[in-house]
Amino acid sequence: MRIIIFGGAGFLGKKLALRLLKVGALAIKGNTPQPISQIILFDRELANGLPDDPRLKILAGDITDTQAIEALLAEPPDVIFHLAAIVSGEAEKNFELGMDVNLHASLHMLELCRKMEGTPVFVFASSCAIFGGELTETIRDDTAPTPQSSYGTQKAIVDLLVNDYSRRGFIDGRALRLPTIVVRPGKPNAATSSFASSIIREPLQGERASCPVGPDTKVWLLSPKRVAENFVHAAEIPAAELGRNRSVNLPGITVTVDEMVSDLQSVAGAEKAELIDWEPDAFIQSIVLTWPPQFVTERALQLGFQRDASFREVIEAFIEDELS
Amino acid sequence: MRIIIFGGAGFLGKKLALRLLKVGALAIKGNTPQPISQIILFDRELANGLPDDPRLKILAGDITDTQAIEALLAEPPDVIFHLAAIVSGEAEKNFELGMDVNLHASLHMLELCRKMEGTPVFVFASSCAIFGGELTETIRDDTAPTPQSSYGTQKAIVDLLVNDYSRRGFIDGRALRLPTIVVRPGKPNAATSSFASSIIREPLQGERASCPVGPDTKVWLLSPKRVAENFVHAAEIPAAELGRNRSVNLPGITVTVDEMVSDLQSVAGAEKAELIDWEPDAFIQSIVLTWPPQFVTERALQLGFQRDASFREVIEAFIEDELS
Repeated sequence: MRIIIFGGAGFLGKKLALRLLKVGALAIKGNTPQPISQIILFDRELANGLPDDPRLKILAGDITDTQAIEALLAEPPDVIFHLAAIVSGEAEKNFELGMDVNLHASLHMLELCRKMEGTPVFVFASSCAIFGGELTETIRDDTAPTPQSSYGTQKAIVDLLVNDYSRRGFIDGRALRLPTIVVRPGKPNAATSSFASSIIREPLQGERASCPVGPDTKVWLLSPKRVAENFVHAAEIPAAELGRNRSVNLPGITVTVDEMVSDLQSVAGAEKAELIDWEPDAFIQSIVLTWPPQFVTERALQLGFQRDASFREVIEAFIEDELS
Repeated sequence: MRIIIFGGAGFLGKKLALRLLKVGALAIKGNTPQPISQIILFDRELANGLPDDPRLKILAGDITDTQAIEALLAEPPDVIFHLAAIVSGEAEKNFELGMDVNLHASLHMLELCRKMEGTPVFVFASSCAIFGGELTETIRDDTAPTPQSSYGTQKAIVDLLVNDYSRRGFIDGRALRLPTIVVRPGKPNAATSSFASSIIREPLQGERASCPVGPDTKVWLLSPKRVAENFVHAAEIPAAELGRNRSVNLPGITVTVDEMVSDLQSVAGAEKAELIDWEPDAFIQSIVLTWPPQFVTERALQLGFQRDASFREVIEAFIEDELS
């Protein structure tokens, strides 16, 4: 079985690759598990820090380079994980770049799948940033996407395409709408949700972190560990269980920033909270505060997707996986 | 005030042009009414049967011809009505054509608006075919689009783009999700909803009509007269009333095919029903029967959009407007 991960150099792509190496085989399309022979990690930079495993193939290139992507997909993969994206803050500031990567490159990839021999399983990293605005309170499985950012709009569009390309049999698609992923390893990035990881990650390492939103801000979140497990699970769910709706609001937990800081103190000591600078930022708030913090994700739970038991457990998993 | 109607040779485009000529002026963006100096009707064929009015300019061209559209929009219009589309049945049978016209040509038009001096009012003919499938019963204003056709998918995508381009100030957009329009004048077309007009229009003219669905099939419908009025109204609603949500499920009435035939008999005589051939068609049913027939359109009614009082009135208006 051959797998391609677009966005393979990101923390999530690498986490997913490690998970795939660990499970060693995937049972897709109702077949018995088949051993994974190759995992290609494609990104604008080479994925680093991964084990020396003959199954891994690490490539760098531009996802908007149509010829490069065509060459890459010339040998049809069994499974594509599409995690590549211009993140929310960057797509808001650079509209054209966001459209090129988040919409046009995704559409080009789907078109190559359409013309490909065979029907690849196509797992797309969509986002709960497709929701927001005036109509929404608690998000149900049938709530309309009303994105309040260009990033959310682009994700919602690819969601629709994944559904139609699946309905027509061009791909066997699954679009997972990810909560904010906390605690991300590495450095702060241009995602407007970046702070949600920073306020835990930096203090745990004795560094200062900036919090651009108030302590009562609610965050709908999922840990990197759970999201990697959920991606693998998504590839293995039989199409019949998904039916005609290939979009899934992943499960998560709702936590206030205040509760996050409180759990940080409880796990790592009261002094950690003093490393957080409360610095309100109007641009970040103009996007983050439109994201609805409450979801009812009955369908995802019925389909076997997993959430974290508590935010304390999320912090402890981060310490174990990334800091020890 | 200059207006462009894309899809201007269709029955709806022409009906809209006639309505605009009649009202003579539009009050957009909260301004006082400005006289309409020019209405350009653009379509793949020249619009015919319109009055000889110096305000009308009739052009033929290909909406996928990027240079032609760029030239057309070189002088920025005040209002664009975008009604051009590959209809549902055709877009289902010819996937690439549907994507080219319904998605890519729309996106190109929006991109030209983005780069244009000024911010045109952009009224998009979306469709209730964006709804359907498993999750839906009665469609509310916040129900998620789950299209069961490529046409519906393409319309739902442009809806999202109209919202984001409006939010960013590139256009002042309004996406009207049209019920099935009944009674369309002219000949049957490749829309899978074509029968809903045929079973009234053909018998009224002494011709036979084919009905591919059963008599208990419910249709969510709006008359051509009302939809033309609603398009004009859409251009005039102040942006502040729409807020961040530029998509509107237009109001309509739900009628069974049986009730439609019964009203036809009541208006035009019992023998008219004998001109209908009941010929079940699996392809038509596979799309039409996924369209939800019940809507609650509170928002549209609050915004001042109008529906028909009864199906009997719809038949009578068709006879008056088209057959007398």
